Amino acid sequence: MFTPKPIGFVRSHYTRTEEIPKGLGAKHEAEGVLDILPEFGDGLTDIEGFSHLFVIWEFDRSEGFKLLGTPPSDDRPHGVFATRSPRRPNPIGLTVVELLSRGGLLLHVRGVDMLDGTPILDIKPYLSGVPQEALKRGWLAEAEARKGK
Amino acid sequence: MFTPKPIGFVRSHYTRTEEIPKGLGAKHEAEGVLDILPEFGDGLTDIEGFSHLFVIWEFDRSEGFKLLGTPPSDDRPHGVFATRSPRRPNPIGLTVVELLSRGGLLLHVRGVDMLDGTPILDIKPYLSGVPQEALKRGWLAEAEARKGK
Repeated sequence: MFTPKPIGFVRSHYTRTEEIPKGLGAKHEAEGVLDILPEFGDGLTDIEGFSHLFVIWEFDRSEGFKLLGTPPSDDRPHGVFATRSPRRPNPIGLTVVELLSRGGLLLHVRGVDMLDGTPILDIKPYLSGVPQEALKRGWLAEAEARKGK
Repeated sequence: MFTPKPIGFVRSHYTRTEEIPKGLGAKHEAEGVLDILPEFGDGLTDIEGFSHLFVIWEFDRSEGFKLLGTPPSDDRPHGVFATRSPRRPNPIGLTVVELLSRGGLLLHVRGVDMLDGTPILDIKPYLSGVPQEALKRGWLAEAEARKGK
């Protein structure tokens, strides 16, 4: 397989995982910066036309993986692929951010849930979403219902 | 950084990239299977409750990367991070699929745009989408407008 390399790093106000909102109803409104390395700068051409981006990044401070775990949103264990746990077989994170502005190699974004210094692996344009009414949210919807949310 | 490892492989009808619908208005309705390796099976616990999944995978038949390229949807070049080109600094693909059913280690899904045998790196639940009216689609919207779509 390929050898991952950072294309840049996240600049965020979060320095410890405890600071990042988690669990049911967690809102990710924090602003931050995607600071892209100069050698990949040409890859940003025309990105400013998109309102939302997928950011694929490395959970670089996560160790090992756990196939079953109890997420902050529930008191019951679920499979890692049915959660957003950082302890994954491949420690890859995925965040949808809103692109607020671009200044050269810096993308100012809203919706950051990564720690400061997180290595970025890829950025892709967000082109369409699944309508809310077509979504089933499994154990998370059940956990919300149990908590009366 | 971490060393990627497959958690499973895509079973798809596509054996050549030419067969995969591309460009403006491409619909991905193809069904396929996410065939998960037995040692990661426990990670699928409760996944069947979700209607849609993010699949993160490797462009394993793509070589090298190109920071600027002309996608099939346009006749003008754009930065790789503003496109879904396979020739990325980290050859990581991202697809949203609809989960049709699960049979043990096999996830039957709709919306496959990967080649048969593609290594899967991660699966995550799709929890919410950005509403269509909040999306700006940059050069893609412009290219569509130019082509009268």
